[in-house]
Amino acid sequence: MSDNLVKPENFLFGESEKDALELDCGKKLHSVNIRYETYGELSPDGTNAVLIQHALSGDAHVSGKHAPDDKKSGWWDEMIGPGKYLDTNKYFVVCSNVIGGCAGSTGPRSINPKTGKLYNMDFPVITIADMVRAQKRLMEHLKIKKWLSIVGGSMGGMQALEWAIDYPDLMESVIPIATTARLSPQAIAFDWVGRQAILADSNWHDGNYSEGDTQKGLSIARMLAHITYLSDESMKNKFGRELQDSPSYSFAFKRDFTVESYLEYQGQRFTERFDANSYLYITRATDYFDISAKADGDLAKALEPVKCHFLVVSFSSDWLFPASQSEDLVKALLKNQCEVSYCEVQSSYGHDAFLLEVDTLGKMISDFLHNRQEAVRGR
Amino acid sequence: MSDNLVKPENFLFGESEKDALELDCGKKLHSVNIRYETYGELSPDGTNAVLIQHALSGDAHVSGKHAPDDKKSGWWDEMIGPGKYLDTNKYFVVCSNVIGGCAGSTGPRSINPKTGKLYNMDFPVITIADMVRAQKRLMEHLKIKKWLSIVGGSMGGMQALEWAIDYPDLMESVIPIATTARLSPQAIAFDWVGRQAILADSNWHDGNYSEGDTQKGLSIARMLAHITYLSDESMKNKFGRELQDSPSYSFAFKRDFTVESYLEYQGQRFTERFDANSYLYITRATDYFDISAKADGDLAKALEPVKCHFLVVSFSSDWLFPASQSEDLVKALLKNQCEVSYCEVQSSYGHDAFLLEVDTLGKMISDFLHNRQEAVRGR
Repeated sequence: MSDNLVKPENFLFGESEKDALELDCGKKLHSVNIRYETYGELSPDGTNAVLIQHALSGDAHVSGKHAPDDKKSGWWDEMIGPGKYLDTNKYFVVCSNVIGGCAGSTGPRSINPKTGKLYNMDFPVITIADMVRAQKRLMEHLKIKKWLSIVGGSMGGMQALEWAIDYPDLMESVIPIATTARLSPQAIAFDWVGRQAILADSNWHDGNYSEGDTQKGLSIARMLAHITYLSDESMKNKFGRELQDSPSYSFAFKRDFTVESYLEYQGQRFTERFDANSYLYITRATDYFDISAKADGDLAKALEPVKCHFLVVSFSSDWLFPASQSEDLVKALLKNQCEVSYCEVQSSYGHDAFLLEVDTLGKMISDFLHNRQEAVRGR
Repeated sequence: MSDNLVKPENFLFGESEKDALELDCGKKLHSVNIRYETYGELSPDGTNAVLIQHALSGDAHVSGKHAPDDKKSGWWDEMIGPGKYLDTNKYFVVCSNVIGGCAGSTGPRSINPKTGKLYNMDFPVITIADMVRAQKRLMEHLKIKKWLSIVGGSMGGMQALEWAIDYPDLMESVIPIATTARLSPQAIAFDWVGRQAILADSNWHDGNYSEGDTQKGLSIARMLAHITYLSDESMKNKFGRELQDSPSYSFAFKRDFTVESYLEYQGQRFTERFDANSYLYITRATDYFDISAKADGDLAKALEPVKCHFLVVSFSSDWLFPASQSEDLVKALLKNQCEVSYCEVQSSYGHDAFLLEVDTLGKMISDFLHNRQEAVRGR
């Protein structure tokens, strides 16, 4: 297999009651599949394993191609690969699809082993900690003793933070990017409205929808979310008030503006690759994310177990997870005398900057990982 | 009738082809009703008439009560009334429901005189300039020669700006508050998503819905818009991550958070008083609003006809119509050597501040109007 080709793998666990995955809601998940991909080789000293966490709509396919004629590469291919910022000639990179997802790991559109039918809305409501607990099983399966780093943007960053608190001995560092230690009421509110659009969709059938049915509700949820991923400035630069098809207004309700056309396309395309039920479960998991909750809202206290080094990155125009939220995290870590590097990157791209500012981010990550590995090997 | 009681009035025009209201879309509107209310008396010298413009979901009932046992007063009752900031003992205040609305003026749920049936989606797509053109007819009907001022927040401010350009000789001043000279692509995008929720609602029936049918789509549109009226900070202060009914998460998709409960309530309540079709038409009118369009995007050039004085007010935490948009307007007016006062009010209330910062705003408006009237009377 050539360097830039990758094969998705499956790790199945939890067949027995004892082996089942315990969830925060109190239920257990049986016969759990984790879809994952790996890049590069685990070094003999085991110091080069990096876990990449995907965001809400991402998947395990973070780099390379599955087949030579694939039109698209993995979602962070500019960042990760042979000779790239996160150099897979040097590091052993792992990325897995979250549970609750719809890209290979067990989620609401998987078969419920108890009924032989799709879970749909019988799937248990999961949390970010549940996702991480499943990844911990994958770590054991892959015989990784300690991650050199856990890297993630947005919801991926939430998972990275959760790892650092729940398994403080299992990583040298974490890199939370464009993320937050607890979802804000504004973000909860946007999630709520998106979910209401799905729940109200007459094609959704209480989650028991048929493949092929148009999922207009999901498309609306995605269009709404998309606005929160951009910034006022980037939308001005990208679309302005430009009209799409005609030099003048249609005086109708079809799309007139380029921005409307863009949203329509993004919403439609999303329904072709994503599951409405997964969208409900994953957004709910982010709503529930608040690492300070167990410490009565005291973020520093909640972060006390943490032992690893941090590289925290935010983006100036990100208004979904604004820099101030990263600063709250950094202040709490510093209060605990943790080792933290922090950078607020100046960017007009809004929340999406974590996927677009590859060069700026790549150099930081590359240097940080190199230094971390040197330090580990020097011990 | 006591001072704080007011009777809604109707002004019907456009019965004949010649008298019909010409619209920007090229069509004409016949048998147009304008629902309006007036407060105070027009002074013998005619220098005390103030036109108040309502925002998207507002109406003509801006002050006082219709009956002594009304639970609520008009939507800007704290600002306007006898002895209040906009003192109706001193000023003659007029407020009318916009055409396209659903609070008495002709809109999509009015009878189409050509068919004898509800217009619904046969109602023509209107613009802010069309709304203003209808108000101009009302002005003639009321025998007002010149407005002392035209005052409006949000979409009301758009109407005020449109007046200043289209009828520059008919007002001494305008007070555009928390508004913009052209809707941004971000605001167009939010409107688009809100409308898609209405269009996708299986109860909406292409606009031919029955009274009493639940309008879930409208509720979703309203919930979404509501988030844009608040600020991140005000949502943190008002809701935080507080749970509504239970000390712990439900692990379900019903409302858990106070902010979810608030949105659900606001969305539901809105469907009881507003029309889904009006929502489509009025948001479209705001999308189309760009006073610079006729001058190829040159705001100063577009504002050249303007003769009146301006008091422009923005709010620091308003991210729907941010202060920078008011500043663009002010700069363009100054370039034209117009008389402009500008204030960015420090407030955490977001866009809603124009309805909540009554004292700060009231003092400014009161002083400004007083000075304007003194100047007029001194001529």
